[in-house]
Amino acid sequence: MGDLEIRAAVATDVPAIIGMLADDPLGAQRESPEDLTPYMAAWERLSADPNQYVVVAVREGRVVGTLQLSIIPGLSRRGSTRSIIEGVRIHADERGSGLGTQLIRWAIDASRHQGCRLVQLTSDKSRTDAHRFYERLGFEASHTGFKLQL
Amino acid sequence: MGDLEIRAAVATDVPAIIGMLADDPLGAQRESPEDLTPYMAAWERLSADPNQYVVVAVREGRVVGTLQLSIIPGLSRRGSTRSIIEGVRIHADERGSGLGTQLIRWAIDASRHQGCRLVQLTSDKSRTDAHRFYERLGFEASHTGFKLQL
Repeated sequence: MGDLEIRAAVATDVPAIIGMLADDPLGAQRESPEDLTPYMAAWERLSADPNQYVVVAVREGRVVGTLQLSIIPGLSRRGSTRSIIEGVRIHADERGSGLGTQLIRWAIDASRHQGCRLVQLTSDKSRTDAHRFYERLGFEASHTGFKLQL
Repeated sequence: MGDLEIRAAVATDVPAIIGMLADDPLGAQRESPEDLTPYMAAWERLSADPNQYVVVAVREGRVVGTLQLSIIPGLSRRGSTRSIIEGVRIHADERGSGLGTQLIRWAIDASRHQGCRLVQLTSDKSRTDAHRFYERLGFEASHTGFKLQL
């Protein structure tokens, strides 16, 4: 396989990102890749926030992975800044290739550079393969994640 | 009991907030209320970020509760903005008074005003009382929360 580049996403990457968000057992029910309007509005909001990093992994000119990293200052844990990883997706053609590990390692390194003391994420309880993946990378499944839809 | 006010925290509230963060089974091991230096540095970073809201509940001039609300734009779920609740603490004198419910309801309302479609939080697996509390407020324990300390 060709060389991999992990870089900040740009507006023209959004369709490929949405395609990956939708190509997923849970995402298929939640996304609407046929109408990019709400995504481009969200992209504007993301681009204006210096603490949000949407990144893509690109191989041979093709977007094959993505995640969002959010940097969150806070008072707890002696004033620790933490990061949150969201929206991790690997293109179907690349699953099992180690790309997920490379992307998460990128996020951990970026968090360290930002002075974060903690990296956190939540994963739907149904994604048991993902849970093993995160534990192999050193994450501890110490918390229960609660969501409320508005 | 006197009237309750929920308002944005100011710098002079930080010692009372740290006192509550430390007066907790998990926080007691993680906080250092005798040295406010790292907390005041974090306060500067929080104050500079327009998407972070540290709030306090005040009764009769005394800080009796706190939480942090973070607003996070994103591409997933059709470009949904979400909010994250962190650092929820109720003063020992006020536990069981319904103040926790008022604070979380405040955070839900604030999230709605900010256009959020989702409110989320993680709670340590050992905090079983808190889990029942969030479920009563309509949150769903749908996720596993992973943390990696750096």
